[in-house]
Formats: sequence, structure tokens, C-alpha cells
Amino acid sequence: MPNPTAAMLVIGNEILSGRTRDANMHHLAGEFTKRGIDLAEVRIVSDESAAIVEALTALKDRYDIVVTSGGIGPTHDDITADCVAEAMGVSIDVRDDARAILAEHYERTGKELNDARLRMARIPDGATLIENPVSAAPGFSIGNVHVMAGVPQVFQAMVASVLPTLTGGAPLLSQSIRVERGEGDIAGPLRELAEEFPDLSFGSYPFHENGIYGAHVVVRGSDGARVDAAVTQLAETFAE
Amino acid sequence: MPNPTAAMLVIGNEILSGRTRDANMHHLAGEFTKRGIDLAEVRIVSDESAAIVEALTALKDRYDIVVTSGGIGPTHDDITADCVAEAMGVSIDVRDDARAILAEHYERTGKELNDARLRMARIPDGATLIENPVSAAPGFSIGNVHVMAGVPQVFQAMVASVLPTLTGGAPLLSQSIRVERGEGDIAGPLRELAEEFPDLSFGSYPFHENGIYGAHVVVRGSDGARVDAAVTQLAETFAE
Repeated sequence: MPNPTAAMLVIGNEILSGRTRDANMHHLAGEFTKRGIDLAEVRIVSDESAAIVEALTALKDRYDIVVTSGGIGPTHDDITADCVAEAMGVSIDVRDDARAILAEHYERTGKELNDARLRMARIPDGATLIENPVSAAPGFSIGNVHVMAGVPQVFQAMVASVLPTLTGGAPLLSQSIRVERGEGDIAGPLRELAEEFPDLSFGSYPFHENGIYGAHVVVRGSDGARVDAAVTQLAETFAE
Repeated sequence: MPNPTAAMLVIGNEILSGRTRDANMHHLAGEFTKRGIDLAEVRIVSDESAAIVEALTALKDRYDIVVTSGGIGPTHDDITADCVAEAMGVSIDVRDDARAILAEHYERTGKELNDARLRMARIPDGATLIENPVSAAPGFSIGNVHVMAGVPQVFQAMVASVLPTLTGGAPLLSQSIRVERGEGDIAGPLRELAEEFPDLSFGSYPFHENGIYGAHVVVRGSDGARVDAAVTQLAETFAE
């Protein structure tokens, strides 16, 4: 059975403007790879309703799993929950269980549950809440879409909550070797190896460091013995 | 006149697998912002022909400028140039000017211009070459699509070559202040300010550090005096 496929939608003005560098995508990619879920596509869009709804609609129909990050806070530009409701064709309103979580959190921390914060209890109809152990305001899952916060610490906690509920595939194993030759000298033998091991994937990531040209060749597959065999053969080829 | 819009397409198996963390997107976002070009969307796809062609087709019709990174090296999984030709509806073959650049480079460095390396001289019909001062193999521009290498050092050099040829808008100016209050207390005043300054954009990026909750509030716009005015008003609001 092939591995489940996944996509990520980042609502990320701060990434598109160059203000911050992505951390959530990198985290999710690593977690999915360990569990045998193939992250096949990532889209980063700004906090405009039409862009979010269109991307969500495309991704949720195409992939088994969709994770979003960002846009579920209390400010006026936090519109992800409403966009998810629209894309899933369901209504959205403040929900009692989410409101109760917020009320308890803000009472404990001595802050007011004002109108802005109450926006974070808006949950699409039929969604399941995702716990937020850091700052209380929950994420949610609806259908195959999992909606998480953009703050990396919260995002990572939400990923940890949701991962055990997802059916993974065989974990993807990888091994890599460093070859100090130009990629153009690696390409021919690598193509032959890829033909000999059609069940594995071969990637070549060139580097130039201190005047040395080379590439990290990465072999990936779910069968450890096959990955071993291919890497051994690779090492022999380039030891000559 | 509104600023030109742009999209980036990353052909990035190594990013989707979690092996490496993006650097090119972050670089391009910063360069575009300085020049008043709005990076509106980024997509990251794997090195599968159908995925690349589909994303390119969607992005080139929607945005003024499209930049791709990755997939133009000599190995069997480097298929970007062929995908661009398909998406643009033109033919592709080894081109004499590109071959000459490679021939000179490999003669100088004492390496063979073998079949794998010659693949890097495959250029879609009608494209203009983008110089690669690092490792010779050129990128190219065709229509509104600019095709660049994925190695960060080469990508940055190619961006530097192409940027002067692009028409930018008014550079986006930004100022930010750090507010040590919960985002839920910032949201109300921020919404009012956003209504008072409809020509500016306001972003709020929450942080939790050493037990302190707060947000960096960023004000962006092309009129420096307006940005100043809004930030001054913000500072006064939160100084109370």
C-alpha cells in the first residue's frame, strides 16, 4: 500500500515579506517523514480570504492529509478558521467547549476574555478540537484538514497531538554519502543505480565548500536492506 | 499603481522530506520586499513532471513575475527546464550559447563535458540565459518565468542578475514595535488603527519568551510618513 500523502498550507505574510524564516514546514516535514507520510506539496499564501479558501479547496481534495499553520489568533487578520469553514462548506460560530477552555485559561492568568480573544473560540461545525498546552486557544481538525497555530512552540505541540491519530505508512529510511566529485560526474552512475533500484529514490544535493565541489547523495526507501545495498554499491562506485 | 505581484515555485524534494531547511525563499522574499514587488504565493512541489507543470501553469498566468528554484542540474531528477518548456508551450533542446558556456567552464576546470553535464545546456526556445558566476550552468528567463538553480549561492547570484531587469514598485517600508501584552489585548486597538490607516498593513507576530507573552507589531506601507505616524500612535496606545 502506498504511503498516505499530505500537503501543508502556511498562512504566512511574515514569511512572504521576508520578515521571518519558516520553521513549521521544516518541523512537519521531518515528523511526517519519520511516520511514512509523504509531504507532497506546500503552499504559502497571505492572509487574504480568497487565496486561503482556494488553496484549501485544492489541497483537501487532492491529498489524504492537510495541515495548516497560522492565522488562528485574536487579531483582525486571523481569518483561517472562517476560511476553513467556507472551504469545507460548514457554518462557524463561537463554540461552548472552546469558550470554556479560553475562559478557564484567562481566569487563571488574570486576563480578560474580551471580544478579540473570544474570536479564538470560533470553530467550524463538526470539528474536533486540538489541544494547545502552551497558550490554550485550540486548533481543530475537520475532515482531513488539521488547523494549527503559527507560533512554532504551539504548532509543534499541536502536531504532537494530531500525529498519533494519523495512519502512517512504512517509515521512510534514508542514508547519504558525501561524494567529492562534480555532480556531472555523479549523474551517470546515479541514473544507472536508480534504474537498478526502482523501489528507491535517489537525490543528489550539490555543495561547494572551501573550493571543494561535490554532492550529498541521499538514498531513500522503506526497505532498509535495499537502502543498505544501494548505498554500499554507491560507495564502491565512487571509491574507484 | 499597485506593486507588481510575484510567486515562487520551489522544486524541493529535500525540503519536503525535511532534510534541508529553505534558504532561497527567505532570500527572495527579502529582495522582493526591498524593491516593492509583492511575493504573494510560494509553492513547493517534488520533482514530478506533472506537479511542476501544473503549478507553473497556474502561477505564470496569475502573477506578474514567477521565479523557480531547483531542478536544473545534471542528474536524472533535474527536469525543471523540460517542465518549463512544456508549461510555456515551446520546444527545448541543447542550445549553442549555453553549450559554449559549459564547454569553456569544463575545459578551464579540467572536467569532461559529458552527456549528463550537457543536459544543463537544454534551454527552452526563446529563453534568455541568466548568468551563473559560481558554477557556469546558466538559468534562463522565458516570458515572466525566471528559472534559477537551487544551490543557495548560485540562486542568490541569479537573483542579483535578474532583479535589475524587473520593474518594481514603491519599496515596502516597515517598522515594528515590541509590545509585552497578550495578543488578545493588542487585537482591539490594532483593529481600530488598521481602520484609521487603510493604506497600511498591520501584522501581529506573537511570541512567548522566558515566560513573557507579547507580540511584535509590524506596520508596513510605501509612505514613510504614514508608517511613522501609525507606529507613533501604536507606541502611545501601548505605553498607557
